Amino acid sequence: MSEKYVYLFNEGDASMRNLLGGKGANLAEMTNLGMPVPQGFTVTTEACTKYYDDGKTISKEVVDQITDAMGKLEEISGKKFGDPDNPFLVSVRSGARASMPGMMDTILNLGLNDVAVEGLANKSGNARWAYDSYRRFIQMFSDVVMGIDKELFEEALQEQKDKKGVKLDTELDADDLKEVVQAYKKIYKEQKGEEFPQDAKDQLLEAVTAVFRSWDNPRAIVYRRMNDIPASWGTAVNVQSMVFGNMGDSSGTGVAFTRNPSTGEKKLYGEYLMNAQGEDVVAGIRTPQPISHLEEQMPEVYKQFAEIAQKLENHYRDMQDMEFTIEDGKLYMLQTRNGKRTAPAALKIAVDLVNEGKLTEREAVLKVEPKQLDSLLHPQFNPEALKKAKPIAKGLPASPGAACGQLYFTADEATKAAAGGQKVVLARQETSPEDIEGMYASEGILTARGGMTSHAAVVARGMGTCCVAGCGEVRISEADKTMTGPDGTVYKEGDWISLDGSTGNVYGEAIETQEAQVTGDFETVMNWADGIRKLNVRTNADTPHDAKQAVEFGAEGIGLCRTEHMFFDEDRIGPMREMIVANDTEQREKALAKLLPMQKNDFKEIYRAMEGRPVTIRFLDPPLHEFLPTDPQDIKDLADDMGLTVDELTGIIEDLHEFNPMLGHRGVRLAITYPEIAVMQTRAVIEAAIEVMEETGLDIVPEIMIPLVGDLKELDYVKHYVDETAKKVMDEKGKQIEYKVGTMIEVPRAAVTADDIAKEAEFFSFGTNDLTQMTFGFSRDDAGKFLEDYYEKKVYEFDPFQKLDQTGVGQLVKMAVEKGKATRPDIKLGICGEHGGDPSTVEFCNEVGLNYVSCSPFRVPIARLAAAQAVVKQEDENK
Amino acid sequence: MSEKYVYLFNEGDASMRNLLGGKGANLAEMTNLGMPVPQGFTVTTEACTKYYDDGKTISKEVVDQITDAMGKLEEISGKKFGDPDNPFLVSVRSGARASMPGMMDTILNLGLNDVAVEGLANKSGNARWAYDSYRRFIQMFSDVVMGIDKELFEEALQEQKDKKGVKLDTELDADDLKEVVQAYKKIYKEQKGEEFPQDAKDQLLEAVTAVFRSWDNPRAIVYRRMNDIPASWGTAVNVQSMVFGNMGDSSGTGVAFTRNPSTGEKKLYGEYLMNAQGEDVVAGIRTPQPISHLEEQMPEVYKQFAEIAQKLENHYRDMQDMEFTIEDGKLYMLQTRNGKRTAPAALKIAVDLVNEGKLTEREAVLKVEPKQLDSLLHPQFNPEALKKAKPIAKGLPASPGAACGQLYFTADEATKAAAGGQKVVLARQETSPEDIEGMYASEGILTARGGMTSHAAVVARGMGTCCVAGCGEVRISEADKTMTGPDGTVYKEGDWISLDGSTGNVYGEAIETQEAQVTGDFETVMNWADGIRKLNVRTNADTPHDAKQAVEFGAEGIGLCRTEHMFFDEDRIGPMREMIVANDTEQREKALAKLLPMQKNDFKEIYRAMEGRPVTIRFLDPPLHEFLPTDPQDIKDLADDMGLTVDELTGIIEDLHEFNPMLGHRGVRLAITYPEIAVMQTRAVIEAAIEVMEETGLDIVPEIMIPLVGDLKELDYVKHYVDETAKKVMDEKGKQIEYKVGTMIEVPRAAVTADDIAKEAEFFSFGTNDLTQMTFGFSRDDAGKFLEDYYEKKVYEFDPFQKLDQTGVGQLVKMAVEKGKATRPDIKLGICGEHGGDPSTVEFCNEVGLNYVSCSPFRVPIARLAAAQAVVKQEDENK
Repeated sequence: MSEKYVYLFNEGDASMRNLLGGKGANLAEMTNLGMPVPQGFTVTTEACTKYYDDGKTISKEVVDQITDAMGKLEEISGKKFGDPDNPFLVSVRSGARASMPGMMDTILNLGLNDVAVEGLANKSGNARWAYDSYRRFIQMFSDVVMGIDKELFEEALQEQKDKKGVKLDTELDADDLKEVVQAYKKIYKEQKGEEFPQDAKDQLLEAVTAVFRSWDNPRAIVYRRMNDIPASWGTAVNVQSMVFGNMGDSSGTGVAFTRNPSTGEKKLYGEYLMNAQGEDVVAGIRTPQPISHLEEQMPEVYKQFAEIAQKLENHYRDMQDMEFTIEDGKLYMLQTRNGKRTAPAALKIAVDLVNEGKLTEREAVLKVEPKQLDSLLHPQFNPEALKKAKPIAKGLPASPGAACGQLYFTADEATKAAAGGQKVVLARQETSPEDIEGMYASEGILTARGGMTSHAAVVARGMGTCCVAGCGEVRISEADKTMTGPDGTVYKEGDWISLDGSTGNVYGEAIETQEAQVTGDFETVMNWADGIRKLNVRTNADTPHDAKQAVEFGAEGIGLCRTEHMFFDEDRIGPMREMIVANDTEQREKALAKLLPMQKNDFKEIYRAMEGRPVTIRFLDPPLHEFLPTDPQDIKDLADDMGLTVDELTGIIEDLHEFNPMLGHRGVRLAITYPEIAVMQTRAVIEAAIEVMEETGLDIVPEIMIPLVGDLKELDYVKHYVDETAKKVMDEKGKQIEYKVGTMIEVPRAAVTADDIAKEAEFFSFGTNDLTQMTFGFSRDDAGKFLEDYYEKKVYEFDPFQKLDQTGVGQLVKMAVEKGKATRPDIKLGICGEHGGDPSTVEFCNEVGLNYVSCSPFRVPIARLAAAQAVVKQEDENK
Repeated sequence: MSEKYVYLFNEGDASMRNLLGGKGANLAEMTNLGMPVPQGFTVTTEACTKYYDDGKTISKEVVDQITDAMGKLEEISGKKFGDPDNPFLVSVRSGARASMPGMMDTILNLGLNDVAVEGLANKSGNARWAYDSYRRFIQMFSDVVMGIDKELFEEALQEQKDKKGVKLDTELDADDLKEVVQAYKKIYKEQKGEEFPQDAKDQLLEAVTAVFRSWDNPRAIVYRRMNDIPASWGTAVNVQSMVFGNMGDSSGTGVAFTRNPSTGEKKLYGEYLMNAQGEDVVAGIRTPQPISHLEEQMPEVYKQFAEIAQKLENHYRDMQDMEFTIEDGKLYMLQTRNGKRTAPAALKIAVDLVNEGKLTEREAVLKVEPKQLDSLLHPQFNPEALKKAKPIAKGLPASPGAACGQLYFTADEATKAAAGGQKVVLARQETSPEDIEGMYASEGILTARGGMTSHAAVVARGMGTCCVAGCGEVRISEADKTMTGPDGTVYKEGDWISLDGSTGNVYGEAIETQEAQVTGDFETVMNWADGIRKLNVRTNADTPHDAKQAVEFGAEGIGLCRTEHMFFDEDRIGPMREMIVANDTEQREKALAKLLPMQKNDFKEIYRAMEGRPVTIRFLDPPLHEFLPTDPQDIKDLADDMGLTVDELTGIIEDLHEFNPMLGHRGVRLAITYPEIAVMQTRAVIEAAIEVMEETGLDIVPEIMIPLVGDLKELDYVKHYVDETAKKVMDEKGKQIEYKVGTMIEVPRAAVTADDIAKEAEFFSFGTNDLTQMTFGFSRDDAGKFLEDYYEKKVYEFDPFQKLDQTGVGQLVKMAVEKGKATRPDIKLGICGEHGGDPSTVEFCNEVGLNYVSCSPFRVPIARLAAAQAVVKQEDENK
């Protein structure tokens, strides 16, 4: 028995979305609901997949089913393709499972040919319109379906106008347009070597194939990757009887939402245009009317439409985005779908629908896209002001939000200017740890070099500060204190610029921003989410400031506190460097003794900020050379400070050089070479905990996390020093406290031997950044160069650093979870890579049974919502 | 019931080696065989492990059992500890499972105290000897067991001699020695704060503990790591009644082998010394007699010893290494063990024992240590000449063998000198691909920088040329053409030096070398091995020269032919660089077209050398920047050649810079960005195969291997180009041939998703070098810096780059094997990392069911033997 690849609208329903695409399924559903839908059929997504499997050819099986469906459609409509009296015309549109811009445009009026155009002329009594429709169809078909350059058609049209001595298309009459049609058909024949297809079936098959092809065009590929849509889904094709909104003043076409998609207000929202077709509404030639106006103009139609809209919203239990056409006073529904909406609207609609009794809270949390929340947590440009602005360059959208301020080129000057009350944007070639203070003082950060994980990007995301990174289009001269745009415009210190960290756009002017607004609806939805989710949500925070911010966003603890970031501060880098260049353990311990009070104080402030919530502190991780200068002058200064010759210091720096720093002397390996570092850090952690407990009465259970462990014995070795030191400190202080020692699982070997490691580790935290890098065998810094080729060639469909690779890396995570639990059933399991804030990864973490996810402060709300959605989706699946 | 930690000799046997250690088990066995063995007991290896588990304390349980055994021993011997008439004395010796130098020295005469010494004096009638024994015991015990500086004792002895006005120890009489004993006891008390232990039990427990402690001394740790002995094995302690070879002229002591351990000749071999004890034989004060001399001196004793020796060899079915003592005309056996032997002896003994009907061939292959074969395949120093030489510096033993030649500092000059008939040693800061020709021309290669995987090391191993790498002790000035030794001696161009690539020693003089000798026994044993093994053995070879060499050594195919090495040659690097700096596909294809004939010709020569054996060709793997110059002058020259400005070329080089080249744009990633490279390489592979098939009539089935695949789609993408090109070439040539396409498994993700990858891969070759690096998360180049700390601190016990980490990396290999076979039951599986030549890894590969191992040509015989041993061991285990 052969597969069914074509469904008439009356054969489908809304549940068949995967097979029929969103548009097709909803057209079928509206048909079932008895709504006025021009009939048609849908070629399934499986036909699209088959098209690709068959080496990009459309099989006879599918062709036969399409032909068959065309016949049935003619029967239903009572019209015939090519009929000189009453020709049957259709529209052809793509329709994937998920709404997908970038695919093939709609083709209208398909079915027109030399004979049918006469039928159209006769029936409408408007030959001009009929021929205009035909020439438009030829042009659209030739361009969109056959890939013929549309300029050729524009030129032919211009010739006709020149010949007639007129300027506007509308000044051509029916006879002129007949000539244009002839000219167009000639172009077609020249370009394709054959006549323009007269057979509606040929036209249709070409159009269907063009839709299939468009599934794989570059724009579609990019969109899929951005939105986690697998190539294997394919697109469906909808073939629908034409209705005409341009048949006169009792005809029209429009789009509308059941609620306001910007604000969520419960009121029909949209616009329409009488005597118009398709694109005319958005083309901007005539100004459309607001939908409310239709009530006066055509009260009956409006009433019918309003009723249908309400019925659809009730039916789908969500705000609907609808297209309709009025043909000669009769309403037709062309499309309905759950409408896209802004984040505030999403929250308001979710809350309203619950209040209206249409949704349960459990259902309502699914109605908000977690990633959308991000925009609520950062300043944004005033949309009106933004409309008028034009970007001068584009970099990487490294940290979201909008920033507007005066340009400064050094961290010091930025700090000073900000202290003087200025709003500041810091522009640097790339940032370094010395710039931290200036970065804190700035509204936004712009770098000319560096990727999504450059110092600027990582630090800015952590701070929640807007950042555009790696903007190679501008030249930044720190010496001259100038920034030169791609057009040669020079921006000087103090000039106003604006950055959009969500798009990467850079503007050479001030654009008004507005503060983040966390409304009551936000809180309501978050509370629902908190009631549903099972995963705890922690934050990655290295400073009291970040910790407080995260708690405000609902963080339930710190999952990753990177202690090394504390050593980059100006007053700490000195002793840190002393420690690194030390000749022996004694010198090293002397330098560490200087760091101890600073580190301890950091921990105390963080404990206070977290008010008894768990805090996981990761011990020193990066290779030591990261703390040493590279600039010759800096090296000389440091050598002087340290009482070394430049040669000696250069020798030390050269010794520390690594071919592959990612795979070098870092993480637990540092503590094995220099256990005194772990000893100092343990002392800081435990002393701080005891002191804050005594000061506040809070109960603090510090979690000490050893990074980069790949073998039980590594953990063993360091844990021995940790336990010994902790005991010593507690004895000194005369107070016993609880603490935990655990490890990152970020090296593949750790996942594979997790049963062993769990013998000593009281918790695992999956460091999925490094685990991804090592499992794939590419470093994030270097992969940028070839991953673009991977996406383009469809080798990868998503960025494994954004979304956890569940097939590969995920298997290692699962393995480690199972092995860890087998050894230690109550082991605490979390994730602290950047994936922790990615909704699909949160879903995965929920499924494999982690206890918590940890992410940067600004992603905490996203993770909370995603964790709730994961629970609901899993329960729904298990039903 | 409590564990048994102490066994009397008559309670054990040879099978209890793991528990009793080698020495203890053999003493028990000899006791059972009714041989004259001074009785004693063994404290087990488990007691040692328990000692460490108990925090380095010896438990009451063990102490009680030792005390009990001491009592039983007194009964057996009929003597009593501390008996003033006939005191019982014992020796204490360590004895691990495997013979292990670096552990505690033997302690003799334990049991002596102030009373027993009198008993000894009375019984022997030789008070001088008794007190000399006592003072020696105090000194030995204080030094070895208690860690007191032995200089203190030497000084006290000197004082006594000064007091008496004599020069030699022997000039001191019994009364002098009594004073010395008093002085020694005083030193002991001063140092330890307590009297020298008078109780034999205390002495014994301290000695046992000292043996346990010595298991963990640095020398022992290094030895274990070199020999794959786990720390968990522990050592046993043997306590044995003293017999005295120094009781007069009818007493003596000696060591002997049942066959000559240097040559394998079947004849008692050894030496003895009359009126001597323990160390005297090897101390060199008196010259020992050859064992044959004993036949004349004490015919009865000799006859008895010869019979025992023969009986032991027959019993153990292997050459024995024995220690004996003659006390007053009576023979005592103190030890027997399978004797260590040179590689030629090992082969001869194995063959002889089979010929004598004592061993089957299957058993005989186990008698040769595979790693030993290495020495047979390379030139060695003449042992006599070597004895007189003293090394001037030591580097890394990067490639085995010995070399002697005149110094040259550039590849060009080395090449010229060699062409002129000189024997040449090439000394460089570090080598680079441009040096290949000079390296080929040299006897040995010395570098001042770089590790075991530096260019020099890898290339030299591949060539089988002796190499000492990273010898930082010498300063090499290529400009001045001098090498300066650590003592300041300057060696100039043309000076003679010698290198030992097996030890890393550098000699500032000529030392005679002797050529590799592959005797008939070698061939015989190899043939037996070939008859037994299941694994095929292939070689890693990139040149016809290496391929031929490997075939001579028994390689059955090429498991890894690295195509990039072909591009470093002087005449190829040009077009290669053109390819890299190409602006577009067209330019790139033009450069590739120049490379095609060269690459094709390489393949043709390799096919011819391999005479129809399978050849696996790996497509381009390293990051492209490796092919570009780094030196400013070289960059300028290249820019001129390429018609680029220096800035343009520098820009290209900077663009190609990678933070972590190991994790960068390499392997299959290159072919995805530039499929035209894979197209060129496929064409070369297939054209060459067809042409050589037509020329020779050989049947050639090329195996194309895509490196660094981590996802099926990567392989898919490239395979498409390979198949397309192969088809095109075969159509052009009018000849269809078979070929296979497979992949390296060297990225953890490939192992995890091997089921998927096997859908397209016809074979897997485990690239365990990279797989190890990525699974552990450290790069071999960088790990050198911290792995020493790991070994020292017992975090790791072996080098995972030498011996496959079966616990971690091995799990991924097993997983990939199972998943691969599940998808494609007839998938061909091999390993081509450097581990392929490591015997323990070969055993692992045999066990998990690989089809072949591939290793460098000089390791092929090792792998053949190891593969046979793996089969025998596995069958024995399954019995």
